This record gives sequence, C-alpha cells and structure tokens, in this order.
Amino acid sequence: MSHEIDGLEFPTSLGTSTPDTISLLGQDLTADLMGKVGFGELAFWLVAMRRPTAGEVRVFESVLVALADHGFTPTAIAARVTYLSAPDSLQGALAAGLLGGGSRFLGVTEDCGGYLHDVLTAHEAAGHPLPTTDEEWDDLALASVTATREAKRFVPGLGHPVHKQGDPRTPVLIGIAEEEGLRGPHLRLFEAIGRTHASVLGRHLPLNGAGVCGAALADLGLPVELLRGFALLARAAGLLGQLAEERRRPIASDIYLTVDRNAAYVDPES
Amino acid sequence: MSHEIDGLEFPTSLGTSTPDTISLLGQDLTADLMGKVGFGELAFWLVAMRRPTAGEVRVFESVLVALADHGFTPTAIAARVTYLSAPDSLQGALAAGLLGGGSRFLGVTEDCGGYLHDVLTAHEAAGHPLPTTDEEWDDLALASVTATREAKRFVPGLGHPVHKQGDPRTPVLIGIAEEEGLRGPHLRLFEAIGRTHASVLGRHLPLNGAGVCGAALADLGLPVELLRGFALLARAAGLLGQLAEERRRPIASDIYLTVDRNAAYVDPES
Amino acid sequence: MSHEIDGLEFPTSLGTSTPDTISLLGQDLTADLMGKVGFGELAFWLVAMRRPTAGEVRVFESVLVALADHGFTPTAIAARVTYLSAPDSLQGALAAGLLGGGSRFLGVTEDCGGYLHDVLTAHEAAGHPLPTTDEEWDDLALASVTATREAKRFVPGLGHPVHKQGDPRTPVLIGIAEEEGLRGPHLRLFEAIGRTHASVLGRHLPLNGAGVCGAALADLGLPVELLRGFALLARAAGLLGQLAEERRRPIASDIYLTVDRNAAYVDPES
Amino acid sequence: MSHEIDGLEFPTSLGTSTPDTISLLGQDLTADLMGKVGFGELAFWLVAMRRPTAGEVRVFESVLVALADHGFTPTAIAARVTYLSAPDSLQGALAAGLLGGGSRFLGVTEDCGGYLHDVLTAHEAAGHPLPTTDEEWDDLALASVTATREAKRFVPGLGHPVHKQGDPRTPVLIGIAEEEGLRGPHLRLFEAIGRTHASVLGRHLPLNGAGVCGAALADLGLPVELLRGFALLARAAGLLGQLAEERRRPIASDIYLTVDRNAAYVDPES
Repeated sequence: MSHEIDGLEFPTSLGTSTPDTISLLGQDLTADLMGKVGFGELAFWLVAMRRPTAGEVRVFESVLVALADHGFTPTAIAARVTYLSAPDSLQGALAAGLLGGGSRFLGVTEDCGGYLHDVLTAHEAAGHPLPTTDEEWDDLALASVTATREAKRFVPGLGHPVHKQGDPRTPVLIGIAEEEGLRGPHLRLFEAIGRTHASVLGRHLPLNGAGVCGAALADLGLPVELLRGFALLARAAGLLGQLAEERRRPIASDIYLTVDRNAAYVDPES
Repeated sequence: MSHEIDGLEFPTSLGTSTPDTISLLGQDLTADLMGKVGFGELAFWLVAMRRPTAGEVRVFESVLVALADHGFTPTAIAARVTYLSAPDSLQGALAAGLLGGGSRFLGVTEDCGGYLHDVLTAHEAAGHPLPTTDEEWDDLALASVTATREAKRFVPGLGHPVHKQGDPRTPVLIGIAEEEGLRGPHLRLFEAIGRTHASVLGRHLPLNGAGVCGAALADLGLPVELLRGFALLARAAGLLGQLAEERRRPIASDIYLTVDRNAAYVDPES
Repeated sequence: MSHEIDGLEFPTSLGTSTPDTISLLGQDLTADLMGKVGFGELAFWLVAMRRPTAGEVRVFESVLVALADHGFTPTAIAARVTYLSAPDSLQGALAAGLLGGGSRFLGVTEDCGGYLHDVLTAHEAAGHPLPTTDEEWDDLALASVTATREAKRFVPGLGHPVHKQGDPRTPVLIGIAEEEGLRGPHLRLFEAIGRTHASVLGRHLPLNGAGVCGAALADLGLPVELLRGFALLARAAGLLGQLAEERRRPIASDIYLTVDRNAAYVDPES
Repeated sequence: MSHEIDGLEFPTSLGTSTPDTISLLGQDLTADLMGKVGFGELAFWLVAMRRPTAGEVRVFESVLVALADHGFTPTAIAARVTYLSAPDSLQGALAAGLLGGGSRFLGVTEDCGGYLHDVLTAHEAAGHPLPTTDEEWDDLALASVTATREAKRFVPGLGHPVHKQGDPRTPVLIGIAEEEGLRGPHLRLFEAIGRTHASVLGRHLPLNGAGVCGAALADLGLPVELLRGFALLARAAGLLGQLAEERRRPIASDIYLTVDRNAAYVDPES
C-alpha cells in the first residue's frame, strides 16, 4: 500500500521530518532548539505557538515546580500500586497516575484559571475596562463571588484541607510573577477574591496553591481550556520521582496489604 | 476513622507538608525551589535524588527537547482520537498517548542506555579498566556487537526508518555533551558501535536519536531502568502540543473517517 | 510491618478470601458461582448487588452484544496504534481504547439513561403517577423535549451519523425487552420521544442504538451514574477482538503511515 | 475532505455498517446476535473467529467468573483512588485499574497458558505423540519442570500467597472442563505438573487459580498470546463492581489518608 495519497492532508505546525532534517514548530530541531531551548520553554511554546520570554519561562517553571509532587496523593498511590502489579510497563504506571488528574485534585488549576478568565471576559464583554486599583479589583471580585454564591456554585481555588491558615505557595508565586512583570489581571482578581470573599461566604478561606497556579498560567496567555495539561505535565515529573522511589524503597506492597488485610466483609443487603 | 496509626509508616523523601510548610526532596518548596530551580532540573533531582549541575541540566534538557515530539506518531494519533472521543477528559487523552511508550517507539531510549550499561558493567566486572582511546573503545564495541549478533539479538539504537544516512540529532547531542564535559563512557561506546558495527552486520546503520538520548542519560548517572520515564516525560509535553493543535486545527475526525470509510470486510474464514 | 491493624477497616461486599475459601458477593466462588453463573450475569450482580433473573440477563447481554464493537471507531484506532507501539503491554492497548469511552462516543448510553431517569424522577417528585397509555407517554415526552429545547440542550439518544432513517438496534432491543416483560418506563418514554420530538425540533431523528441501550439498562434498575461502565465492559470485549485481528491482519502501521506521510506543514502564525 | 479513497483499504472481519444494517463477524448484529448470543459467547467469538459450543461457553465463562474480582488487589485500589480523584471520568478509573494487569498479577493466566503451550508444541515438534496416560503426562511434566528449573526460571501457575494448601478454584475448574469434555492437554499437563514438581523443586506448591484458568483457556483453542486479554475482560467486570461499591460505601479517601497521614520523611542521602 502506498501511503502518500493525493488530496489527503493532515496539517500540523509541530514535528515533521525529511531524511536529513527534523523540524519542530517551524524550527530546525537540532540547530535551533537542542541545547538552546529549555524543556519548560519548549512545553510552553508547543501549546502557545510562541516562544516565551525569560520572565515567562521563570513564572511558568515555578508553576510546574509547585505542582510536581504533593507526596502520597491518590495519583501517587495509583502509580505505585500499578507499578507493583505490572512492573514491566512503566508507561502504564505513569498513565494510571495521570488518570487521577481530574476534577477533584489537579483540576483545580484549570477550574480556577477558567473561572477567573470567564469573569474577566464577561466584564470586558459588558464594555467595562479592567480595574486599575485594588478597590476596583475588590468590587469586581465581590460581585463575582456573590454571583457564584447565588448560583450555588463554589469559587475554585479557595480553601485547602491542610494549609488552613494560608497556602505558602500563594504569596511566593505572586511575588515571582511581580518580579517578572507578569502579575496580570487573573492574579489580581484572584488576590481580590482572597481579600473580599469572607464578607460573602461568612468565613475566611486561603487562596490555595493549585488555584494561584491556574491564575498565573492564565496571565501568561496560555489557553484556559488546557491549563489542566500543565498540571499533568508537572505531575508526570513528580510521578517519575514516586516510581523511582518505589524502586529504591518500595511501599506499594505495604499499601496493598494494609488495605487487603483489613478488609471487612459487609452483607450486601445491609 | 483516625488515620494516624502507631507503627504504620510509609517512608518517602519526596513531598510532605505541615499546615505551614511544604517540603520536597528535603527542601522548602517555596523558599528553596520555586523560582530558583528549573522544571527539567527538578525532574532530574526527583529521580536521581541529587541536584544536577548546570551542565547536566543542559544535556538533560537537550534530550527532553529532542524526544518531545516526532509529529504524527502512533502516540500522537492515539492521543488525538481519544480526545475526539472523550474531550471532557484531557488526562485520558494524554494517558492514551503515553501508553504507546513501550518497546517499539519510546522504548529505544531505555533499551539502548541499558544495553550500553550492561556492556560496560560486564567489562568492569571482568576486571578490565574502561577504554581510554578510540581504538580500545572500538575493540570493546566490536566484541559486544559480535556477541549480540551471535545471540541473534539486535543492538538497540542502530537504524532509523527515515534518517537512513544519519540521524541529525546524534552528532548534535554528542557535541552538547562534549561542551559540558559529559561525554562519558556510554556515549563513547555508542559512538564506537557506530564506527565498527558495519564489519559485523554487513551494512552501515545510523546511530539513531532515541539511542543517543539513552546513552547521554546513562552518562548523567540516571538509573537505566527508568530511562523510558524521561522519554515519557518529554513526550508528555509533545502530546500537550498535539492536543492544543487538535483544538485549534482538528484532524482526529479526518483520521477516524479515513480509516472507517475505507474499511473492507473480509470473510473471517479466508 | 504487620498489616493487620486494630481499628482499621475497609468494608466490602465483594471478593474476600481465607486460606481455604474464596467468597464473592457473599457467595462461595467455587461452589455457588463458577459454572453456575454466566459472566454477564455476574457483571450485573457485581454492580446491582442482586442476582438478575433470566429475562434480565437476556436484555442485559443483548445490550452488551449491541455495544461491543462498532468497527473502526476512535476507540479501536487508539487501541490498535497503541498495540503497534507497545506490543508488550496488552493492558495498555486495551486501556488506551477504553479511554475514548467519554462524552461523545460511549457516553450516549449513560447520558440517555440519565436523561430519561431525570425526567421520570421529576415527574414522580411532582406527585404525578407514571403514564399508562401511549397518549400520556407522548404528553410527558413532548413536555420534556420542549423543556430541553428551551434550555438549549440536546436530547441524548436522538440522531445517528450513519443510520439516518432508523437505527436497526432500536426496535430489536425494544422487542427483546417486551418479550422478557422488561419494557419499562425508560424505554416507553424513549419511544414516546421518538414519536413526538419532530413537532418540537422541526425534523425527525432516529432513536439511536446507544440511547436505547441506556434506556433498557435503566429499566433493569441499574444505577444510571454507572451506565457508561457497561458500555465500557462491552467495548472491552470488542477491543479484544480488534487487538486479536490486529495480530492476525495488522492495519495500525498503515493507519500511522497514512497520517504521517500526508502531514502538511502549516506556519504556526497562519 | 472526501474520506473514501481509491486504493486505500483497511480490512476487517469485525463491525461494519451501512445505513440500514450493522454487521459483526459476518453476522447481522440485530437479526443473528442480539438476544441470541450471550456476552461471553460473543467475546470468545470475537477473538477466536468462530462461535463456541455451549460447553466451551460454560468453561470460558467459568474462567471469567473465577478471575473477575479478588477483592482489594492493587488493581482495585488503583481504580478506586483514581475515581476519588477524577470522579467525572469513569473510563479513567477503569483504565487505571486495568493497567495493573501486567506480569505480576493478571499475567499469570497468560504466562501459564503460554508455558504449557510451549511445552506441548516442542514435544510435538520433536515428533512425539501427546501422552495418553497419567504416567506419560507425569513423565512430560517432570521433564519440563526439570528443564525450567535448570534454566533458573519459574514454572508459572505454581504457588499462591494465601491458598497455600490448595487453591479452591483449581479442582472446580478442572471438574467443569471434564463435564464438558474439554479437559484437554494443557489442563492434563498442568495437573501432571501438580503431581510431579515437588520431587524437582523440593517442596509441594498448589496449582493456583490464575494458572488453571490459563490452561483451560488454552484448551479451548484461544490464542495463548492473548490470554491476558480475557483476564482483563473479567477484571473489567470486577472493577465495575469495585467502582459501584466505591459510590455506595467509599473507602478510597480512607486509603489515601491512611497512607498520607503516616508518611515518614527519610533523608534522601540515607
């Protein structure tokens, strides 16, 4: 079967090759990218279709570093027990871990970035300019938290089960964004939500790290529908660390036996 | 149920946290890592349990950049058609793509690094010092290719379906390793295999890019059993690029319909 | 580490074992289940926590048979190209295929069952008895299609890209349910939607096979939140068939090359 | 883009359709299969390309029933914690569970069937007829166990961590096969290994249930390279049961917190 077919075209701006050259994003992979572009920089470029500035790379990699590993999360547990069960397939263990990157855990980054983006888009669509003072940001934040509350929905990025008095990542990431001149409207709105939500919700909740990461990524101009993807990329590195540790100092068998040996039969009718 | 149980311990050197702090690799995540450590650097550290030097980071990230995307590979196709079918689950599309990271495609990096590592380990275990000249390396390479051939096995990292006259990544990555003083025994043995194999195998094959990446990673001291993991991490970034492009300029439906509309029924008995 | 821990209990009604016996669903696996219970029957029991009648098994297995394989769908393509790329991991190829079981393809079964369930639940919650005549069913259907239309949402289970004049599975499954005395309210409402929607939507659409399967499963009393799971189970069998065929008569490489060889580079700026 | 392309053909004997009909395995799906063929029967047919007899279906479904669920295995744990983390993606939780179907747990079925198949094939390739008496089977078994031992490899299917005095599934499955006239050479060889291995290995090990399932499937003429696939299909049903139970009576959060709250930091240098 000949595979070159007249009229059949699959367009792409990513990787293509000829016998002599490999091209990626319209660049010569070996002459322009290898050794010259960092890995985080390339990941940004692959999604945004533009090369980030040095400042953007620093903020972006700070987010990836912040999200890489949170210890024995469900994703780490899934990856480790899968590796125990199928040690011949590292890709399977990694994939099992990433499959937990859904709405409850890693999804907060995307949900928060998307929430802030929607508020800003609606604000501008209504003909209003973006706020320029903290007071104006607070007004916008208050209006959006109130509307969300009235719709009986949660504001993503608020609250943390462990860091109840404040997530240490939040001020640090805002500070890095400020240093690089990238503290944009998503972060500012998120900060304003932090200052104002208590008057609506009746209690003060911390701005969590997953949320602030979403805000920072959105300020970098990355597509909000794909923010979860960066959390997954970050977690891929963290899961490799978990699997490397599982090889050095295994715990998956102890997890399995701790659960299995304490199984308690319950009558299905009960 | 109380979850803190006397005598139950799951040891880890990765992420842990208290209400006020987050720790990773024994470092304070926010004070020591965010904004100060690059993402590739952290990925290396998470697996190797040591912070890499700047030169090591450059070689390591060059490998990740080289492996990130190879265009419309089976992994990219799997990710895109899965996203078409289940657009609500980005993690599922990414996982589907990574599951193709097995023996045939992404596995070459691991297989090649492992092969070179085994030859070097056996050489040293037999009491021989490592070669110091090209001639000595060629002798070792020739012996190992001959033994592999006699065992009717393939030497991993030799040959490429497209880059038949030479894979452009190979000399570039060796050059970067040389610049950083990291052109170690795995790369040297791989190069010697490139110079000598034709006399055993009867034809000249290029040293492919996936293979040279495995050699370079092994020279960085990374565990050879986990080299595939770095190819998967690199590919995670590439797959995000594929999925971002699928959103902007979809082709998965055309792939699906091109296959489905040209299905030809075959009698199962035939 | 001892794994039996006082006070730690993980309750289950599924599989447990002692050195001499294996128990599942409160039954003795070897004395009560093996050779006595069919596989579909067990799958039903595992989810519903009750043994189905013979009639229920027949309807249930008809649904699984209807959903097992639809040829070269995105799920089949993902499974085949993943097997090409990682032939050492059958579980990875199967998992890649199942990951396409999301909102667009396999999800219709769940969406349709859930939609019908919601309409019936709201109807009863409002204090109305279930309809008893076709005319009454049509009234309920008309009201629900109208409300869905007004909410700018789609009625799941209507329309099919290929079977535009009628999906052949629909009348057959309804007939089987009728034969077994299991043509319940979900199927009746779905049929009534088939009779009435054109007056609201302005065109006649077929009741598709995935939708009628969801209605039939809901009439069996299976939890509507898990209906997608049965579509996935059915598809697992179909994907095994696809992978067995890929071994006998491979096409994944032709799919890959057909896409890759017709890649057309597009300037990312364009 | 037109998708029907001259000269492009993707052959298949599985699902195809026209606007009016759906065909599967050369049968009319609605007229010949739905309501007439069981789900296990179809799964067998999809892989073997022939309709099984009633006796074959009974043995086959007994195997699937035996393998469906083994309680809180690593596969069940992975599925449950993934569902906790990403409850919006049932397919992801199921896929995560199946990814543990590798060499250590579910792989035994395939490994054992393949081992027996290889011994029988080599025996016949050497010109010997199959044994006809227990004594002859014992001779063949003894020779194969001895050879395996000398090659420093394990005989798959021997031993069980819990059922040390005998796996209750083994005699039951052999009995069912006997009743159906399907106790063929793979089962007989496996039984002979059970009688003879102790004299070579120095201790008596039980024939485990995963192994006897592989032997029975091989006696049904199913391709030994795909036996793991049937274990995965069986487990798909079991995992649905686990996920349904996780909805009714959740434990994944307790698993997660039991691990996370007992994390013990270890200096990476130690």
